[in-house]
Amino acid sequence: MIESLEDLRERLRAFVRERDWDQFHRPKNLTMALVVEAAELMEHFQWLSLDQPLEEETFREVREEVADVFIYLVRLADELGIDLLAAAADKIEVNARKYPADRVRGSAKKYDRY
Amino acid sequence: MIESLEDLRERLRAFVRERDWDQFHRPKNLTMALVVEAAELMEHFQWLSLDQPLEEETFREVREEVADVFIYLVRLADELGIDLLAAAADKIEVNARKYPADRVRGSAKKYDRY
Amino acid sequence: MIESLEDLRERLRAFVRERDWDQFHRPKNLTMALVVEAAELMEHFQWLSLDQPLEEETFREVREEVADVFIYLVRLADELGIDLLAAAADKIEVNARKYPADRVRGSAKKYDRY
Amino acid sequence: MIESLEDLRERLRAFVRERDWDQFHRPKNLTMALVVEAAELMEHFQWLSLDQPLEEETFREVREEVADVFIYLVRLADELGIDLLAAAADKIEVNARKYPADRVRGSAKKYDRY
Repeated sequence: MIESLEDLRERLRAFVRERDWDQFHRPKNLTMALVVEAAELMEHFQWLSLDQPLEEETFREVREEVADVFIYLVRLADELGIDLLAAAADKIEVNARKYPADRVRGSAKKYDRY
Repeated sequence: MIESLEDLRERLRAFVRERDWDQFHRPKNLTMALVVEAAELMEHFQWLSLDQPLEEETFREVREEVADVFIYLVRLADELGIDLLAAAADKIEVNARKYPADRVRGSAKKYDRY
Repeated sequence: MIESLEDLRERLRAFVRERDWDQFHRPKNLTMALVVEAAELMEHFQWLSLDQPLEEETFREVREEVADVFIYLVRLADELGIDLLAAAADKIEVNARKYPADRVRGSAKKYDRY
Repeated sequence: MIESLEDLRERLRAFVRERDWDQFHRPKNLTMALVVEAAELMEHFQWLSLDQPLEEETFREVREEVADVFIYLVRLADELGIDLLAAAADKIEVNARKYPADRVRGSAKKYDRY
């Protein structure tokens, strides 16, 4: 059973080891795989309008692509020794200081880096 | 404290709601943001050789980009109603059937879709 | 003066040679750089509605990102020995057979590979 | 015959018009398609070592993906009213000032934006 991020990390480590794929799972390659899977996920949305719902079959494919992105992200974090939850918590603190709720409310500008 | 995926999902929901950003967080836009962050993460590796270690400062930036990818992935999954751990578990089952350990060992071909 | 694709290819070759950057411009790395620049270009559009016009300053940045994508594409094609115009002409023929005008008119399905 | 960028731009305009696809070819969507094709191109290189040559069949697929990236780039530039060669020429001038040959020779740092 996979009930936590740790379970998933361990399951994926075993999966890779059983197949002797460690030689391919270098961080550089894993970032490429992560981007490729994220792009395949995005592809399902590229000709849709902003509010267009997904067809049932498309949703199933999207769920698989979301899983692929997650799997490579967990693998990459493991190879780099990064704790995903701790990294996210730290980043949220940074973002909260950068985008104070009372100043950016409702503005897409908040994301604007320029 | 963020101690689980559920904690993170709830924290991010609150973050978005406080800023009235729901209007921007449509699935189509979130897949774009996810790809952008994954590409920014990959950028740190683009001119490196396969085994080149990251400099300390670069590692800190990489950790932040990993966090950004994770944050958008959790947001997207939440908007789509996808349980990340369940989706990953299902995909690992699919992969295990597709790439039996005793047949693909040590071969990069396993990833090859052609 | 850069008046053709050939001019651009030669100008870029000289640019790289003068800086001794050939060692970095391996096809694998160049595909990564291409994706990174394409993602930076896309980033300008990620929170926009489908018909939202670009602000003047954003347009200038978008034009620079379009140029970066073009530059890496010409460099990659040169390293791989691919003639861009000939490759595009061949691909258009393939697409014309795949998507006959009288059968796909007005349907987003045409792009759909599934 | 497609003998120049202008020829290609006109050919693609006709292709899109004949299929009534203008409604899908909004700049936002075209940047997504561009990234998706660039990622599909990159996918062929993700598990390769830096100097690993492409197999013949893979090369044919890579050439098609290069063409797809080029086609979407020309379409996007056309929709945005950007002259690709002029934009590239301007960007090369910017880069030449940013990376003087005698100061960055042989260093990957030149790309480093930090």
